Amino acid sequence: MIEGAQLEEAIALGRAQALHHDDLEYVRLLEQTAGYPRGSVVLPEGSVLPGYPSIGRIQSLEAGLPRRFREPFWAEEKIDGFNVRILRRGEALYAFSRGGFICPFSTDRVPEFVDPSVFDAEPDLILCAEIAGPDTPYLEGSTPRVARDVDLFVFDMMRLGVPGFLPQADKFALLERHGLPVAPVHGQYRPDDIDPLRRLILRLDAEGAEGLVLKTDDGRERAKYVTGGSCVTDIRVCAEQLLDLPPQYFTNRLTRLAIFLAEHPGADSDAMARTLGRAFLEGLDEAVAKSRRQGRVSHRYRCRFRKEENARRFIAHLGDTGGRHVRVAAGMPRAEGDYWLLEFERLFDHMTGTLSSALRGDSQFD
Amino acid sequence: MIEGAQLEEAIALGRAQALHHDDLEYVRLLEQTAGYPRGSVVLPEGSVLPGYPSIGRIQSLEAGLPRRFREPFWAEEKIDGFNVRILRRGEALYAFSRGGFICPFSTDRVPEFVDPSVFDAEPDLILCAEIAGPDTPYLEGSTPRVARDVDLFVFDMMRLGVPGFLPQADKFALLERHGLPVAPVHGQYRPDDIDPLRRLILRLDAEGAEGLVLKTDDGRERAKYVTGGSCVTDIRVCAEQLLDLPPQYFTNRLTRLAIFLAEHPGADSDAMARTLGRAFLEGLDEAVAKSRRQGRVSHRYRCRFRKEENARRFIAHLGDTGGRHVRVAAGMPRAEGDYWLLEFERLFDHMTGTLSSALRGDSQFD
Repeated sequence: MIEGAQLEEAIALGRAQALHHDDLEYVRLLEQTAGYPRGSVVLPEGSVLPGYPSIGRIQSLEAGLPRRFREPFWAEEKIDGFNVRILRRGEALYAFSRGGFICPFSTDRVPEFVDPSVFDAEPDLILCAEIAGPDTPYLEGSTPRVARDVDLFVFDMMRLGVPGFLPQADKFALLERHGLPVAPVHGQYRPDDIDPLRRLILRLDAEGAEGLVLKTDDGRERAKYVTGGSCVTDIRVCAEQLLDLPPQYFTNRLTRLAIFLAEHPGADSDAMARTLGRAFLEGLDEAVAKSRRQGRVSHRYRCRFRKEENARRFIAHLGDTGGRHVRVAAGMPRAEGDYWLLEFERLFDHMTGTLSSALRGDSQFD
Repeated sequence: MIEGAQLEEAIALGRAQALHHDDLEYVRLLEQTAGYPRGSVVLPEGSVLPGYPSIGRIQSLEAGLPRRFREPFWAEEKIDGFNVRILRRGEALYAFSRGGFICPFSTDRVPEFVDPSVFDAEPDLILCAEIAGPDTPYLEGSTPRVARDVDLFVFDMMRLGVPGFLPQADKFALLERHGLPVAPVHGQYRPDDIDPLRRLILRLDAEGAEGLVLKTDDGRERAKYVTGGSCVTDIRVCAEQLLDLPPQYFTNRLTRLAIFLAEHPGADSDAMARTLGRAFLEGLDEAVAKSRRQGRVSHRYRCRFRKEENARRFIAHLGDTGGRHVRVAAGMPRAEGDYWLLEFERLFDHMTGTLSSALRGDSQFD
């Protein structure tokens, strides 16, 4: 619970933001308030959807596992998508983004993947899920785990107003009882199971998966550990935005990749070098080609909605947050089968400016 | 000339710094003063060694040449080293760094490469030269143009107190008359000589050279244009410092490489990708290995001095500017043949910290 007066003060100080979606009024926390982390959401009666906490990353299995874990843990697959928290109010399901916005896209699509009966049995349940696939409005890349459109993977459960996660046993029971789609669970390990985990992560790497989230039975101790390939994939997918993303996006992944390769020697280093070089060069080459062809560097996103009104809400959200960096194609959303298709473009200003200046023959002083 | 009062004021305002080297007192300009750019040096009687101006870079031959040049220009090779300006005072030659310091290393070594008779004939002459090779105290890499130790390449001439460069004809005449070592001159071209210049830059690229500086006869209009390979070399040489250099160091070179490859298609893209990937991975792998082996990531430099006092001056300079990031090995400088050998190490703090934290199993929140 957060008291009304406390919430009013947080809003007045710019530490929280009042929003609404249709009739549902809610407040998202921009900073920690009353013990709830940023990204938490306060609902009309004062009950709180807790923010999804950031999970610490280990970069070395051998050194990290015994430091992080004293008891056995589950290894669940980390899916490369975006994180939503789903709850039911009245008859409707709502999906909240990590930052605490109701996401019109996720809210629109969630009913296709989640049987709402779980909320009849557990009205205060919150599902934490990853939405992933080639057709999202947020991600440039996809995951080999989703061949088309999008899919949804539940990986955690919380209860409204209650900090922390449901124990793993309760989560697994509810997942099974209600037939919810789940992120692959790769078994239980002990902190000294270095070799089995090494084999697991190398198999996941070969399959193109992102990595693992490790969780104790009570859901309290957690760590993430990603594959070397996921670092290269992130670079490939974002090389077109090289000058628009924070440069740490790239340097962190390069460093992480080097540590992964050092911890798992024996890979074909020639092939790895070629793959990494291509990750940079193919995206950059595409950026140069776009600059020559259309005078701007951008990425085109497509996604589908069940309801036209949600597509329009999403377009309004793009207008509010993306400003002139986003161009929605004329005639969008467009009916396509049972869906409403939305295509739009995000412009990369620094790439556009730097490449067009270089290609028109400007001199640069650096 | 800069008047004494003006100089005193600049020093008082922190826009200039008074220094000395033995008996020679001088002032280096930290900001533009009296029309002279930063890096200019004011000598005791008020005469000025002009700062070496930054040369604009073109990234496209086809678009850049006709925009930059209306008349023929010389194509001189750009050597990958560091820039000094050399003058004579009394019997001594002094070499000034780009920032306007007297460099004890360069000052020590210059007499091996420059016949001082040129200053008998031209007392107010300034030689602008690149010092390059495997054994410098500043550079992690070297150039294929220097097999061992260091070498010196004169590429421009100025006169004390006179802005601008000597015309090319005067420069070539003095270079020849006094047998001065010179950066390779690759001929004269017209702004529409795209194809011959393309062949030239591809040949230089194959030889591992850095690139070209293009200069009109009067020395006024200039542009630099570098090879794709030099971008990859810079990345390879500095990958160990990935988190310590400004990240733009890497993103700029990647962008430049992509533009170069787009302008000169036909290279073996597979080989190029592998070379680029290796440039990152081999340096990073070495950094991980150093972190495991010695608990720190650093680069070891070695250079030789003719006079012990100059080596000691250089060590003092390292102490003033490098602080705790520099470790000079015990017993340095050490006599080696006719020279004094200096070896020292520069520590890369961010790489050291990030890698040791990751390898000891810390969790990271990003």
